[in-house]
Amino acid sequence: MSKNIIIASTSTLHGGDYLEYLLPELSVHFEHCKTILFIPFARPGGVSHDEYTVKVSSALAKINIEVKGIHEYENFSKAIKNAEGIFTGGGNTFLLVNQLYENNIMTILAEAIKDGIPYLGTSAGSNICGLTMQTTNDMPIIYPPSFETLGLIPFNLNPHYLDSDTQSKHMGETRETRINEFHSFNNIPVVGLREGSWLVVKGDTITLKGHLTARLFRQNQTPAEIESETDLSFLK
Amino acid sequence: MSKNIIIASTSTLHGGDYLEYLLPELSVHFEHCKTILFIPFARPGGVSHDEYTVKVSSALAKINIEVKGIHEYENFSKAIKNAEGIFTGGGNTFLLVNQLYENNIMTILAEAIKDGIPYLGTSAGSNICGLTMQTTNDMPIIYPPSFETLGLIPFNLNPHYLDSDTQSKHMGETRETRINEFHSFNNIPVVGLREGSWLVVKGDTITLKGHLTARLFRQNQTPAEIESETDLSFLK
Repeated sequence: MSKNIIIASTSTLHGGDYLEYLLPELSVHFEHCKTILFIPFARPGGVSHDEYTVKVSSALAKINIEVKGIHEYENFSKAIKNAEGIFTGGGNTFLLVNQLYENNIMTILAEAIKDGIPYLGTSAGSNICGLTMQTTNDMPIIYPPSFETLGLIPFNLNPHYLDSDTQSKHMGETRETRINEFHSFNNIPVVGLREGSWLVVKGDTITLKGHLTARLFRQNQTPAEIESETDLSFLK
Repeated sequence: MSKNIIIASTSTLHGGDYLEYLLPELSVHFEHCKTILFIPFARPGGVSHDEYTVKVSSALAKINIEVKGIHEYENFSKAIKNAEGIFTGGGNTFLLVNQLYENNIMTILAEAIKDGIPYLGTSAGSNICGLTMQTTNDMPIIYPPSFETLGLIPFNLNPHYLDSDTQSKHMGETRETRINEFHSFNNIPVVGLREGSWLVVKGDTITLKGHLTARLFRQNQTPAEIESETDLSFLK
C-alpha cells in the first residue's frame, strides 16, 4: 500500500459549514471506511476532546462515516494501527505535537499513514504532515519535546496562507516576512496553502487541488505561484 | 537600584521612522548613558547583527546616544554587567530566546535589569520581559531550550496586539482566540499591547503609556480594556 493523504489548508470556508467544501472529495477518499479515527488533540479555542469529536461526527455523518475519537481508546497505538482512516483536526499545532509525543504516537502515526491508511489533515492536522512544524501560525502555548513532525511530504506547510494587506498600517510581520525569517536558518521549502486549497498525496505524487494558486517559498529564491493541479513532488 | 524599564509594543509606527515616536521618552530614560548595549539577536527579516546595529545607531544618534552591538564583545556577560543601558530590538522571539540561552546570558541579563540598568525592549525585546514567550506572534523558526524568559514583570505580553477584523473572511484564528487557547493551559495574565503603547517599569510600578488602551486577558475572565496611566502591578 502507498500513501493516500489529503492535506487541507482549512476545515471551513467563510460562510460554509465545517468540512462542507471537502465533503465530495472526502466521500471518495474515505469510501472504504465505515468508521474513521479522529485525533482531537489540537483543541481549537480550548474545546474538549469530546466536544470536538461530536462536531466532526456531525459533519462526516452527512457522508455516512462514523467517527471515534482517539481519546476514547485505552491503547492509542493500537487504535491507529487498526484504523480504517484517520483525521487530525485543526487548532493549536504546539498542543497537537506535544500530545503526539507525550503519547508516543508520532512515529506510529507516520508509519500507519505511510502504510496507506487514508489520512485527512486540516490546518494543524496538515502542519504535522510536513518535515517540521516550524512554519505554523500558532502561538507556542505549550513547549513540545521537538518541532519535528510526520514528514509525509518533503517540505513544510503554511496553512491559512495570507497575502500581505498592502493597505494595512499594522507594523507586525507579514506572513511572507515570517517565512523569509525561517529561510534565514532553514532550507526546507515551504508551501503557503491558501484557504480553499488542499494537497492530494497518492504514493509519491503530491497534487495541488482547489481553484487557487499556492505560494512556494524556497531558500534564496524569489517566491513563486504554483498553479492548481501541479505535482509538487519535485520539491526537496 | 531598582528596575527602570521601557517595554514597547513596536519600534516603529506606520509612517514614522525607526524608534522615532519613542525618542523623547528615550532621551530621558537613557539620560545618564553615553553608550548603550544593543542586543540584535532577534534579526528581523534575517538582517545581520551588524546591519541591525547600524540601524539602531542611526536612530539613537539623534538623541546623542552611541550604540554598541553585544556581538562586538568577546565576553557577553561582562558586556551586560558593564553596560550603562541596554536595548533589545524586535524580530523573531524564538531566535532571540535561543541565542540568549545558547550564550548563557538569559539569567545575567535579567539580573542586570533587576539591578537597575536602564532597559528598552521593542516587540521581541519586549516579549522576553514577561514570564514566558508563549504569547509571541512569531514563527517557531528555531527550537529554543525553553520558553521561559526574563520575568521582569509578573505577566506575559502580546506586542503588536491586533483587534479582530470583523469584516475579514479569513478563517485563521484571531489574536484573541490564540490568547484564549493559551489560557486553556496557563494562568499567566496576558497584556495585549497595541502599537503606540508601552509600559514603564520603575521599581514595582508598571504604568501603561501612550494614547491607547491595552487589552488584558486573564484565565476564566472576560477580557478588559485598561486605560493609559493605569498601574498594572496588581496583576499576578
